[in-house]
Amino acid sequence: MARSGWVIGLGTGSTAYYAVEELGRLMREEGLLIAGVPTSHASEMLARTNGIPIKTLDDVERIDLAIDGADQVDGGKNLIKGLGGAHTREKIVASFADLFVVVVDDSKLASRLGLGVPVPLEVISLAVPAVTRRVQKLGGQTRLRMAHPAQAHGGPFITDQGNFLMDASFDEIPDPRSMERELNLIPGVVDNGLFTQIAATILVGSGKDGSVSIIE
Amino acid sequence: MARSGWVIGLGTGSTAYYAVEELGRLMREEGLLIAGVPTSHASEMLARTNGIPIKTLDDVERIDLAIDGADQVDGGKNLIKGLGGAHTREKIVASFADLFVVVVDDSKLASRLGLGVPVPLEVISLAVPAVTRRVQKLGGQTRLRMAHPAQAHGGPFITDQGNFLMDASFDEIPDPRSMERELNLIPGVVDNGLFTQIAATILVGSGKDGSVSIIE
Repeated sequence: MARSGWVIGLGTGSTAYYAVEELGRLMREEGLLIAGVPTSHASEMLARTNGIPIKTLDDVERIDLAIDGADQVDGGKNLIKGLGGAHTREKIVASFADLFVVVVDDSKLASRLGLGVPVPLEVISLAVPAVTRRVQKLGGQTRLRMAHPAQAHGGPFITDQGNFLMDASFDEIPDPRSMERELNLIPGVVDNGLFTQIAATILVGSGKDGSVSIIE
Repeated sequence: MARSGWVIGLGTGSTAYYAVEELGRLMREEGLLIAGVPTSHASEMLARTNGIPIKTLDDVERIDLAIDGADQVDGGKNLIKGLGGAHTREKIVASFADLFVVVVDDSKLASRLGLGVPVPLEVISLAVPAVTRRVQKLGGQTRLRMAHPAQAHGGPFITDQGNFLMDASFDEIPDPRSMERELNLIPGVVDNGLFTQIAATILVGSGKDGSVSIIE
């Protein structure tokens, strides 16, 4: 999939983990020469562990390929991302890439986005009450994400940019592109986990037999 | 203008400065009882100096009135704000207010937004190259705002939220509402300085004779 000389955007989360590990293996064993642009502190640490040289957007003219997972995918290649809390930077890197490829297992496919999966919003901390109210007007319910949900005394989850995360639940999202715009218009929302008109290809692995199908 | 019991959003910048000073005077001399929700570290410091009790959005059920200045205003009550670098938090507070009143002098009026005034974008620092490219696609040119433009060795301006500011110049902006949406859709843009469909009233002071006219 990757060629020597490429700059590759490195996603965050369990699927991206395997991709980064595999890229590291190809570098060590097959002589592949690439550089990686990470989408989080976590993916940067993983890339360094695997011997992948790290670049920032300031260092590169282009990103040839960005690879990432997703939390929910519909038939129109729209995504919900951000369960890992890194969707803002993931969207920045994906938007800069010539090709954005998403890898999921078939449990992530849905007829409509929003069914059982909330949309993560990265939010400036002082805007939480204002965002809560605006999301309600859009028909959603928000929940502030905690760092350690099981701990009674834990504080909120903090993103790599120092902000809070709110998970916005909608019964379903009939028009993901329109919802992505509306959510980003809310003052205090840095970015939201809807990714529309950006994924070029979705690779779907079967949970049953491991076969891979492609949505293009 | 203000009544006892009100919670008032306090803007940032030279116009807001006079409003906060006047609110402080009314509290000391006329017994006005209000609380202020600041839009920046600067406005919070000024409010404290003037004896205005400070509240956050978490403390209040509502904001009765938000007062702020603007850098450019058109006849449709659309604004460009952010010359002071505080537009993100100003928009959060204004959006939460029942009434958002803008005070400007008549030098800020323009037939079309964008003529001679750039649109400030609060940007996550690592996204600067990606935002530059996307703004170019919208027909604009960006410039990273520096903290001390006169100093050769100065660094970038840092917002209260820890981000960078980019000033995006367009010849003119025919559809401010659409441009506000497009700019906020760019990954890495936290919020932009276009304020559309939010100002209820614009008070315009004449630079000649000090008279005030109202756009409603």
